[in-house]
Amino acid sequence: MQLKAQLGGDEGKHVFVLKTAKGTRDYNPKQMAIREKVFSIIISCFKRHGAETIDTPVFELKETLTGKYGEDSKLIYDLKDQGGELLSLRYDLTVPFARYLALNKITNIKRYHIAKVYRRDNPAMTRGRYREFYQCDFDIAGQYDAMIPDAECLKIVYEILNELDLGDFRIKVNDRRILDGMFAVCGVPDEKFRTICSTVDKLDKMAWEDVKKEMVNEKGLSEDVADRIGEYVSMQGGQDLAERLLQDPKLSQNKQAFAGLTDMKLLFSYLELFQVTDKTSSEKVRTTETQVLVASAQKNLLEERLKLTSQLWNAGIKAEVLYKKNPKLLSQLQHCEETGIPLVAILGEQELKDGVVKLRNVASREEVDVPRADLVDEIKKRTL
Amino acid sequence: MQLKAQLGGDEGKHVFVLKTAKGTRDYNPKQMAIREKVFSIIISCFKRHGAETIDTPVFELKETLTGKYGEDSKLIYDLKDQGGELLSLRYDLTVPFARYLALNKITNIKRYHIAKVYRRDNPAMTRGRYREFYQCDFDIAGQYDAMIPDAECLKIVYEILNELDLGDFRIKVNDRRILDGMFAVCGVPDEKFRTICSTVDKLDKMAWEDVKKEMVNEKGLSEDVADRIGEYVSMQGGQDLAERLLQDPKLSQNKQAFAGLTDMKLLFSYLELFQVTDKTSSEKVRTTETQVLVASAQKNLLEERLKLTSQLWNAGIKAEVLYKKNPKLLSQLQHCEETGIPLVAILGEQELKDGVVKLRNVASREEVDVPRADLVDEIKKRTL
Repeated sequence: MQLKAQLGGDEGKHVFVLKTAKGTRDYNPKQMAIREKVFSIIISCFKRHGAETIDTPVFELKETLTGKYGEDSKLIYDLKDQGGELLSLRYDLTVPFARYLALNKITNIKRYHIAKVYRRDNPAMTRGRYREFYQCDFDIAGQYDAMIPDAECLKIVYEILNELDLGDFRIKVNDRRILDGMFAVCGVPDEKFRTICSTVDKLDKMAWEDVKKEMVNEKGLSEDVADRIGEYVSMQGGQDLAERLLQDPKLSQNKQAFAGLTDMKLLFSYLELFQVTDKTSSEKVRTTETQVLVASAQKNLLEERLKLTSQLWNAGIKAEVLYKKNPKLLSQLQHCEETGIPLVAILGEQELKDGVVKLRNVASREEVDVPRADLVDEIKKRTL
Repeated sequence: MQLKAQLGGDEGKHVFVLKTAKGTRDYNPKQMAIREKVFSIIISCFKRHGAETIDTPVFELKETLTGKYGEDSKLIYDLKDQGGELLSLRYDLTVPFARYLALNKITNIKRYHIAKVYRRDNPAMTRGRYREFYQCDFDIAGQYDAMIPDAECLKIVYEILNELDLGDFRIKVNDRRILDGMFAVCGVPDEKFRTICSTVDKLDKMAWEDVKKEMVNEKGLSEDVADRIGEYVSMQGGQDLAERLLQDPKLSQNKQAFAGLTDMKLLFSYLELFQVTDKTSSEKVRTTETQVLVASAQKNLLEERLKLTSQLWNAGIKAEVLYKKNPKLLSQLQHCEETGIPLVAILGEQELKDGVVKLRNVASREEVDVPRADLVDEIKKRTL
C-alpha cells in the first residue's frame, strides 16, 4: 500500500502512464522459474566443460563500441550527456569481452557470460524478440592446435540443445576462408566480397531468387557470377560435403578454400570423437569446477584423449583436455595445479592395451590403475 | 586475436582509451566465484521462506521514476533522447516493484529480486561503493495481521547475515510512528517533522553535537527541543526499551507513539518465537520451493505455529506460515493448492498434548500423526 502510494508522485495529480519501456518486458514468477531451469541447464554444461565466468558493466564508454557494429551502430542506446563520460548500453557481450581481455592483458581464457544486452531495434515482440534480451556467450580465447576448441564449442551447443529438449535442431558451421575462396572462383571482384557476403547472409530469410536479384540489380554483379554462387550455396552436408568440395577442381585450387575445407574436415573428425553426430543416425578459490583432466604421457594419443573426455562429459563428469596434439605430461599437471583440478586420468600405450586408465591424485601424487568401466564411479567417489 | 583486432576500430589509427566507465568495474572469475557463493546463500534463504522471484527491465519510463527519490533524483541516469520514449536507468528495485504491482493489479506477493541498480553518485570506490551495484530485495506486499511479516523479514536478515559469516552484526529496527510521536512530545512544529527527520538520519555518520548544531542553526529548532530529542535518540535497546518507553508518561500519552511502541513489543515477541535473539546471549510450474505449510485447525495457536515454522527453517526445511492469527483450515489448504506446496503440518490441541503433528499430503488428502522428533526427517523423505 505504501509502495503504491509512492507511485502517485508527490503532487498526486498527474495521470500516470503505467507500462514498461517499448520492447521490454517484466518476468513474472512463473516465467522466472522457467528461466532459472533453462539457465541452470546451460550453466551446468558450461561448468562441465571447465569454463570460468566473468561480468562486465551494463554500459561502456561510447567510443569502446564505436565502429564495431557497422550499419547496426544506429541501434545502440546512448546515455544522456549529464556531464562526465559519454556512455552507451552494451549491444552484445563480445565487444565488452574483447575490452576485458585487452584491459587485463589476458590472452588465454575459457569463459561464459550470461547477461542482458540492448538494441534500439523495432523487434517483432510477438515472435519473442525484444530490445532488452539475454545472451549466453561461451568463448575460448587463445591460440591452440586447429579445430580442437572449435569442436568443443560445437559439442557444448549440441549438449545444451539436447538437454533443453526443444525438438530437432540443425547446427550450421562455416569458415570464412571457404566463402572467400568460393567468391574468388565464382569471379566476384575483391572489393565486393564484403557487400556480397551480407547479401548471401540473407538466405536465412529470403528465397534464392530474391537474393540473386539484390546481387545483380543492387550490388552490380553479373548474372553468370551470381548463378555460380547459387550453385555453391545450395549445397548442404557435413563431412561428406567437405570431402566433395575438396575434389572440386576449381575450389581446391584456391589456397584459402583448400585451407578452410581441410580444417572443416578435421573439425568433423573431432566431432565424431565427441559424438556430435546426426541423430537421425582446495583452499584457494577455484573459478571452475572441473573434476578431472584427461592427459597422456606419450605422443599420438590425441584421439584417445578426446574420446575419453567425451565419455566423461556424457556421464556428467566435469572434464577438460588440453587443446594440443602432443602436450607434455608436465604441462598437463601444471594446468591442474594452476586451476585446482584434483584428478588426472592418464592414458598411455600400456593402459590402452590393459583397458585401464592411470588415475592420479594431483595433490598426493598417488597413482592407481582403474579399469575403464569403473572410471566414472571412481571419479565421482573421489570428488564428492 | 580476432576479438582484439576488432578493438582497433575500422581505421585502426585512433588511440583507444581502455577502461570501464567511471564508478563501474568488471568481475573477474575469482570475484564471480565468490559472488556466486554469496548469492546462493541469499537465494537459498529466500526460497526456504517461500518467496517467488521476478525481474524487470534495467530502464523504466523516466516519468515512472520522477518524484520518487526527492533530492536524490539528480543522481538518476537518463538515456539520450534518440526519438521515442524518455527512459532512465533504475535507481533501486522498489519503484519498479511498485510499478509491477500496479501494472499487474497484484496486491499480495512475497518476492525477491536480485539485480543491479544505477546511481550517478561520486562514491568512494576504495570503500566498495560503485555507480553500478547489486541490490538484493525481499518484500512482502499485502495486508496481514500486525508484525508477522515484519518478524519474518527480520528472521531472513538474521539468517543470511549468520550464514555469510561476516562476524558480529546489529540489526536496527524503527517505526515511523514512534519517531513522529517523539518529535511531537519534544515540541517540534509539525511542518518541520520531515526536515528534522533527515537530520536525525545523519547520526550514523555525525556526532550528536554536530546533528544538534544543524537542527538549531540551519533548521531553526530551539535548543530545548533539540536537547529533548537528544535524550530519546541516545537510548538503545530491544524489547526492554519498548517496554520502558511505554512507561514514559509523555510518550505513552501520544497516540502515534503508543501504537508504534505496542507493535514494536509485539514484533519482539514474535522475534523470540523465531529465535532471532541477541547472540552475545507437481506438473504445473511452481514458482516457490516451499515443502510444507505450518497450519492449525483451531484458534489461538499462532505462537505454536510460529515456533514450529522456525524449527523447520532451522532444520533447513522450506516452510511457510500464513500471516493471520486465526486462519481457517480451508484457506490454509487453498494456499497449498494454489502454490503447489505438497505437505501441511497441522497443529491442534490434541496433537500438542500427544507431542505429534498431523502431516497431510495435499494431493492425496491422507493424514498421519508424526512424532515431533521425526517430523523433519519425514518431510525430507517425502519431498526428495
